[in-house]
Amino acid sequence: MKKHNFSAGPCILPQEVLKKASDAILNFNNLNLSLIEISHRSKDFVEVMENARSLVKELLNLPDGYSVIFLQGGASLEFLMSTYNLLKTDGKAAYLDTGTWSTKAIKEAKKLGEITVVASSKDAGYNYIPKNYEIPNDVDFFHCTSNNTIFGTQIKEFSKTDSLLVCDMSSDIFSRQLDFSKFDLIYAGAQKNMGPAGTTLVVVKDEILGKTGRDIPSMLDYQVHISKDSMFNTPSVYAVYVSMLTLEWLKNLGGIPAVEKINEAKAALLYAEIDRNPLFKGYANKEDRSLMNVTFNLTDDTHKETFDKIWNEAGIVGIKGHRSVGGYRASIYNAMPMESVQVLVDAMQKFEKQLS
Amino acid sequence: MKKHNFSAGPCILPQEVLKKASDAILNFNNLNLSLIEISHRSKDFVEVMENARSLVKELLNLPDGYSVIFLQGGASLEFLMSTYNLLKTDGKAAYLDTGTWSTKAIKEAKKLGEITVVASSKDAGYNYIPKNYEIPNDVDFFHCTSNNTIFGTQIKEFSKTDSLLVCDMSSDIFSRQLDFSKFDLIYAGAQKNMGPAGTTLVVVKDEILGKTGRDIPSMLDYQVHISKDSMFNTPSVYAVYVSMLTLEWLKNLGGIPAVEKINEAKAALLYAEIDRNPLFKGYANKEDRSLMNVTFNLTDDTHKETFDKIWNEAGIVGIKGHRSVGGYRASIYNAMPMESVQVLVDAMQKFEKQLS
Repeated sequence: MKKHNFSAGPCILPQEVLKKASDAILNFNNLNLSLIEISHRSKDFVEVMENARSLVKELLNLPDGYSVIFLQGGASLEFLMSTYNLLKTDGKAAYLDTGTWSTKAIKEAKKLGEITVVASSKDAGYNYIPKNYEIPNDVDFFHCTSNNTIFGTQIKEFSKTDSLLVCDMSSDIFSRQLDFSKFDLIYAGAQKNMGPAGTTLVVVKDEILGKTGRDIPSMLDYQVHISKDSMFNTPSVYAVYVSMLTLEWLKNLGGIPAVEKINEAKAALLYAEIDRNPLFKGYANKEDRSLMNVTFNLTDDTHKETFDKIWNEAGIVGIKGHRSVGGYRASIYNAMPMESVQVLVDAMQKFEKQLS
Repeated sequence: MKKHNFSAGPCILPQEVLKKASDAILNFNNLNLSLIEISHRSKDFVEVMENARSLVKELLNLPDGYSVIFLQGGASLEFLMSTYNLLKTDGKAAYLDTGTWSTKAIKEAKKLGEITVVASSKDAGYNYIPKNYEIPNDVDFFHCTSNNTIFGTQIKEFSKTDSLLVCDMSSDIFSRQLDFSKFDLIYAGAQKNMGPAGTTLVVVKDEILGKTGRDIPSMLDYQVHISKDSMFNTPSVYAVYVSMLTLEWLKNLGGIPAVEKINEAKAALLYAEIDRNPLFKGYANKEDRSLMNVTFNLTDDTHKETFDKIWNEAGIVGIKGHRSVGGYRASIYNAMPMESVQVLVDAMQKFEKQLS
């Protein structure tokens, strides 16, 4: 039975990517060798890394002066690395707290210096994105999380600030058009719109680095990785390869402008049903709704078993909400086809009929 | 044409592992989902992680009191993490310098405290393992590298010390019988005897942790990862899975005692030919020769083209020596069949005949 995979991450990847990713394990580039048993310094893998890096630059439409590297450790390690690389030894930074991942980023940053939380939506269960806050003038950088997987909120307009703009885009990079050149540092775990778990994308403006006065450990130093073309040590070979395949797929689809249209249509379809169907209510503030993670609850939890049976029978997986929100979360990343969203909407309507 | 893959790492993996690893990308556990698109919190992947962790304990015959975790960042990040977790804020540590990887470990450790290098074979191009050095009594730990991929040397007897014993076993773990309970901390990048690049094995005695007085960043803190069963953040899912498959393969083969015998036979065959054939000379001191990486040079470099043509035509790949040693390096890790070593020996003998 075909599965409709709404997992929040690791999550759905395009079928054609999975096919190529499976083939490369047996025989990569007709070498009669597996991708995962060749040297990362071999011509064949160096090409993969360079292709992945240049696809990122192309798809994000980055001007000169930015470096792209593929690291390990996920956004969780970037919480630390971004601070290490940008926070001066006696410096300050400002953070926007929009949920679990922001909170974790703030916790790690505090180990290295003075952190100001400019605003937080914690008191409302993180169901909205704070606006109209002030960013102090004397901070080394301002950090925000573009999309909040757990709560289903997404920043639509990024704050203007004179300080450096740092953004954790783990769960919505490559999903919508933005002026990426407004950001000084972007990081993203691969396991949503870019590829499988195991690698982290870092996009950084070169001129901002090397100014903290810190003696940064080599593996945490962006400049070290950049100077070695993202090959300071053995990279996470397979995760980089599958990311490259996914970026190629996105390029062939028409890039971010094309996928953005599809993502908007998928989200519109699902949110419309949530708003129309009296058995459901959305979790996030309407104006802050994420195009990637659609969070919703039943208006009456006593019908949970009935609804769960319906979507289970439809082949839907991965829509259980995070324990801190409850209810449901349908993650509809780039690779999710409209067809699967329609299957979920059909299940919601079947549920309504069954109860009427 | 069949390839004989002598790459130093990432390197050869068992064919049956590659077959299963390829299948799992298309359909994992008959879920009709790819392994790399399911949640790392799903029952199916949690089982993979737990199986991998318990196979490590079983194969290394670890007593109670040890934890096994799968991290990211390779040995290069462990150079830093091991120091962070074991070196007291005002502490000292002792290191044995046996090559490039030891040197890198020492460099990162020095950022956190006072490091004594107890011995080094640098002056002899790292072609031997220093012995009879003294480890100071007042150090927090002693660190060594069990096998040196670049130079082809391997520690046969580990030093007795009253301080903690820390070992980078990236390139020979699971290849030979040792009393692993003598070590307090072992770390190893997966991409040699354990799996593909992208995950790092850490084996640590629980009681030694939490004693440095340092405020360790979460992602660098072994206790954080242990407390979350190696799932503090999204792990490198695919690399952990393929490592699990490789550990299962090793268990079915008869574990470390069985593979050790095969490894000794492969190394004996190749070193015998190097010593017999007047056209070759070994690089490493005989008593310190590695069973994993066999380094050798031509006695007369003018014949290089002739020999290179012969092994190329035999389907051999990955035996070019590291630039700091020159010549050749044949890496004969666990998954390398005797048949491939014989093909290399045949090529060496064909070379001899051709020149006679």
